[in-house]
Order: sequence, then structure tokens, then C-alpha cells
Amino acid sequence: MVHSEMSRLKEMKVVQFGLGPIGAGLVKYALQKEGMKFVGAVDIDKEKVGKDLGELTVGKKLGVPVTDDAAGLLRRTKPDIVLHCTGSYLKNVRPQLLKIIDSGADIISTCEELSYPFLKSPKIAKEIDARARKKRVTVLATGVNPGFVMDTLVITATTVCQDVKKITSMRIQDASIRRLPFQKKIGAGLTQDEFRAKVADGTIKHVGFAESIAMIASALGWKLDRIEEKVEPKIADAPVASEYIRVEPGQVAGVDQTAWGIRNGEQVITLNLQAYLGCPDPRESIVIEGQPPVDLTIRGGIHGDIATAAVAVNCIPRVISAKPGLATMKDLPVPSTWLGDLRQFVKKS
Amino acid sequence: MVHSEMSRLKEMKVVQFGLGPIGAGLVKYALQKEGMKFVGAVDIDKEKVGKDLGELTVGKKLGVPVTDDAAGLLRRTKPDIVLHCTGSYLKNVRPQLLKIIDSGADIISTCEELSYPFLKSPKIAKEIDARARKKRVTVLATGVNPGFVMDTLVITATTVCQDVKKITSMRIQDASIRRLPFQKKIGAGLTQDEFRAKVADGTIKHVGFAESIAMIASALGWKLDRIEEKVEPKIADAPVASEYIRVEPGQVAGVDQTAWGIRNGEQVITLNLQAYLGCPDPRESIVIEGQPPVDLTIRGGIHGDIATAAVAVNCIPRVISAKPGLATMKDLPVPSTWLGDLRQFVKKS
Repeated sequence: MVHSEMSRLKEMKVVQFGLGPIGAGLVKYALQKEGMKFVGAVDIDKEKVGKDLGELTVGKKLGVPVTDDAAGLLRRTKPDIVLHCTGSYLKNVRPQLLKIIDSGADIISTCEELSYPFLKSPKIAKEIDARARKKRVTVLATGVNPGFVMDTLVITATTVCQDVKKITSMRIQDASIRRLPFQKKIGAGLTQDEFRAKVADGTIKHVGFAESIAMIASALGWKLDRIEEKVEPKIADAPVASEYIRVEPGQVAGVDQTAWGIRNGEQVITLNLQAYLGCPDPRESIVIEGQPPVDLTIRGGIHGDIATAAVAVNCIPRVISAKPGLATMKDLPVPSTWLGDLRQFVKKS
Repeated sequence: MVHSEMSRLKEMKVVQFGLGPIGAGLVKYALQKEGMKFVGAVDIDKEKVGKDLGELTVGKKLGVPVTDDAAGLLRRTKPDIVLHCTGSYLKNVRPQLLKIIDSGADIISTCEELSYPFLKSPKIAKEIDARARKKRVTVLATGVNPGFVMDTLVITATTVCQDVKKITSMRIQDASIRRLPFQKKIGAGLTQDEFRAKVADGTIKHVGFAESIAMIASALGWKLDRIEEKVEPKIADAPVASEYIRVEPGQVAGVDQTAWGIRNGEQVITLNLQAYLGCPDPRESIVIEGQPPVDLTIRGGIHGDIATAAVAVNCIPRVISAKPGLATMKDLPVPSTWLGDLRQFVKKS
């Protein structure tokens, strides 16, 4: 699109739906962009309702008050796109998604289970896809993981292969430098019994492995027998400490979670996430046993919070340009960051 | 697509256009695939015309004779897609491409200058795009480089970034293990004067850096001032040898080529390719100075010949499913390898 055409397009109207740490991260990044503006924000937290979106995120008034009346806001502001960050589980966020679709807005969500819902929630996936097609909007869920580092990047890396036998993707993270809630979430400082209790009640668990594995398998054309998952503690063998937590030998330093995609009885896809205090060599790693083999490492790893905001906001032009329906990362054009005005990247006819 | 629908689709008809080492590599890989079959092959080499495609590539008769009458073959066989591997320069291959487009076939070409021709050859790019739209076919040029490791993968890696200041992509290859023609092509064993003479007459040069840089810049929305390029010899400081060539200290061990994308006077994109005898640490490297930074390495590098065939053939379903026109890697859905029957990956309505 040439500049003279670009300037004729109006600014894209954006609503932020959900203002937890992830949602606030998206807002901070999105505010740096040109060609789009926030016309509203939704949260149910009484501490946030009525406050200004800018004051809650970047310490600067934007004139956009937070409301808990999503339906009213959507009807009044008619956004082009809604950035949705309220939860990991599809069942919980389904009514919100349907409400946004009915308002005629595209959606980018960070809901992990929505990133590739066809395996675990085929009925809801079908419902959302059908409704989105009917309302002529596009729905995408993404983030750093699921959404990028353990699925889209893995899929992309297989492009050079004539054959693939086995894929192993690992994220090895040093939790010492993360905020306290993250360190607590991974169980740092717990006894092994306390850790196992939290695994059993579901409070220690990365959501998204099943979705990433299903996306990879679909890209390659692998029919899987099943997906298996295991959450283990990473036990400290020497004392380790962060700014907030001290872990003694024998206590839990963090989490070590693995999931396998099983095909013809074999573990053909393995995803492993380790996040713990005192990790000596944080990195992302993708190893493809294939022809040719691929041994890819991102030294130091990718900063999760910054990257999730980046991936979600960076997908805005692709979602606006996409055909209606429930999209997934692998079906949209090659993703990238973009700099400058959103409207030069939008291809909607 | 479910299997019952898949089996109703006919096998895709493929023609191989050009049977040099790259073209033969594509045929070898493509012959492993289901759901597609070769219906013809074109080459102008009198040694190949009349011979069987299978005997020339995999030592097994296929019943597909090589012809030098491209127009007649295309008219007679009406292929769905043509794999085109005849040259690096767009001007030279333009008449072949137009002939294939007019026959109504999609094209995947390994012509380096076609991978992103909008900068260096905007007129031919426009002509090919217009003709392809008119004839309702899709044209894509790709390969390992240009096409993947120094553009598509670089673009993909920026997805996690909220800002990008500078991108450096390096391919460091050990030429000792490659075939003799490759070792000669990079100047191994030459004196420095001989090397510079071959650079001056254009026989030592990787084609594609300008295209890769233009594709990256377009994805990010960077307007470049210009692209600069430099081809230098890699001088041996100790004796090195391959199976074929011995290089004395002070002689040329291989090539060291760099290109820069300049924006506002700064080198914002740097691509560097080194291929030489005795390289101690072959690798692909992508370093993004940004927020967050990305430091990606593929240890051992990616085998160029295998990967170019892989990337080209792996793009078949995406090209068949794409809208008509001249496509580029960055505008098609996320690439991947695929295993099994082509028809389960084809989405043409």
C-alpha cells in the first residue's frame, strides 16, 4: 500500500479485554504503535473499573476509562480488534469470545487453550469458527508459548527437512530474575510434598503443551495416538536464592514439565519446560532428528513476558488481513515484528 | 480435509523444468512423496534429452522422457505445478516463466532473483504478477538461501521483538565436505589475484543477498536507503585440504561475502556468508539487537543442497493453496515440511 492510500485509512480502534500483567503488557507495547488507538478497556476488578487505562499501565492519562460492562463498551465503540487476556482455559473464556465476535471485532487472545483447540475442545473450536465466519471476523490465540517458541518456530524449522523422525523442543529458564508471583507459580521454595499437592490441584502447570504438540503434528501430517504429560519438581542440590526466595538443598527450585506426542507407540514430539532458581544456562532449544538434522539454540532464551506482548500485538496486521474464522499461527502468513504505522501492513480488500 | 475427500482428488501432475544438480535434487525428494507424480521433464542438455527422468536422478526407470520442447510438453501434459530450476538471474529465466504461466501451471522456482524481485526488477516482477493473476496461477521462488535461512527464518525470529535496531545473519560453512564444483565455485586454491578476477567477472558470487535484505526490510516496514555488497577472499593462514584441493597459507580457502541494508545511513541488516576449506565451526547465526534481543544459532549449519530441495518441494501445498499471483515466502502461511500424501495439505476450494 502506498502512503497516499495509507493515510486515507482511519486509525484502527482497539479494545483491551483483561488487564492482568499480560494484558497490561500488551497495552504498553501497543501504545508505542501508530495507526491504532485504544477506544476502551474491560476488567472485572473493582480496583480497576473507572480508572484510566493509561494510568494503570504507563502512568499517563489516555482518557480511556476501564469498564466492567463489556457488552455496552463493544456496542458503543465498535472496535476493529479486541486484545483478549483473561484466562488460560477455553471453557471459561468462551462466553467472552462469543460476545466479542458478535460485536463484529477481530480477536487476538492469549488464551492458551484457544491457540490450537481442535484436539482438546473440538466442539467449542467449531462453534467459535462458525460464529466468526458468520460475523466475518478472525479469531487468533497466540503468545510466546503456546503460539511461538515451541510450535510456530518448531514448525518453521522443519522446512529444511526432507524427513523428520523426532522433534525435541526445550525451554530452560532462570526464574531468579523473574517477579515473585512467577517464582511462586513454579513452586520455588516448596517441599516436594507441597509441590506435588499443587500439581495435583492444578495450580502448578504450564497450559499449552497439548496445543503446541497438536499444532506441530497437524503441520507435518502426523496422526498421534495420544499426548502424555508429566509435571516434576526441579530439586535443588545446593542452596540457591533469588531476591525473594531462598531454597535449601532437597527443596524445590522450580518446575520441570514434559509432554510427549505419541505416534505408532513412539515419542515423536517432546516438549520440555524447566523454570527454576539457579538455572546456569537458560536457553530455547529445538532439535530435529531428520534429514538433514537441525540443532537450533537461542542463547539466554527469550524473555517470556515481553515476548508474549510482542507476539500478540505483532499479529494484529495478519489477523486484520486474514479471512474470517478461527485462525491458528501456522495458517497465517509468516509472522514478524513490524515497525511504524499499522495501516501499511494491512491488506484487507 | 478428511480421507474420504482426499481420495477423490486426483494425483497432482508435476513437471521438472531444469535438471542440473539442484533440479535433480528436487526430483529425488519429490519422488518420495505421495499424491503427486511427474508427467514430464525439460532440459536443453543434449546428453539428457530423450533419457528417462528416473534413470537420470534415482537410477530407476519412471517412463518419463526428458524433452527440450517445453511448450509442447506443457500443452500435452497440462501439469498442476512446474518445479523450475534453470538459473539465478530473472532476466534469463523470464521467457520460461511466462511460458509456464501461460500453460496454466503453478510454479515453484529456485531462481534466486525471483525470490523477492520487487527491488531489483520491479518491471519483471509486475509483469509476472499480472500474468499469473490473469492465468489464475501462483508463482513462488524459494530455496535454502535465498528463501529460508537468511530471510524467512530471520523474519520469523523477529516475531518476539517489540523493537529491532539491527539484524545480523551469518552462514559459516565448511566447504571441505562439499562436492568439487562447489569448492571451485568459492575459489578454494586460487591466488588472491585469481580470486579477485573471478569476483570482477561475476563467477564468484552468491546471488540472493539483495533479495533477502529487501524481504526482511519489507516485513519490518523499513525503507532502506540502499543495499551494499562486498565479496572478499577467505585467506588460509595454515595449510588446509579437502579430498580434492590443497590450499597453502596465503592462498584462498574460500569466500567471505557480506551485504548490508542501509537505513538512515546505518547498517541495519547485515548478511554474511563464509564458505571455505577448514572452517572450524560451521553454523547458521541470527542475532537481533532488539527488545528483547535474540541470539539464535543452528549448530553445524544446514546442508545447502538437501535443504534447497526440501524447501522447494515442501512449499508445494502452500503454492497450490495460495491465491493467484507472484507470491513470496513471507506472504505465504508459515512453512514446514510435510509427510505423507500431498492432497491432505491442499486447501484449494
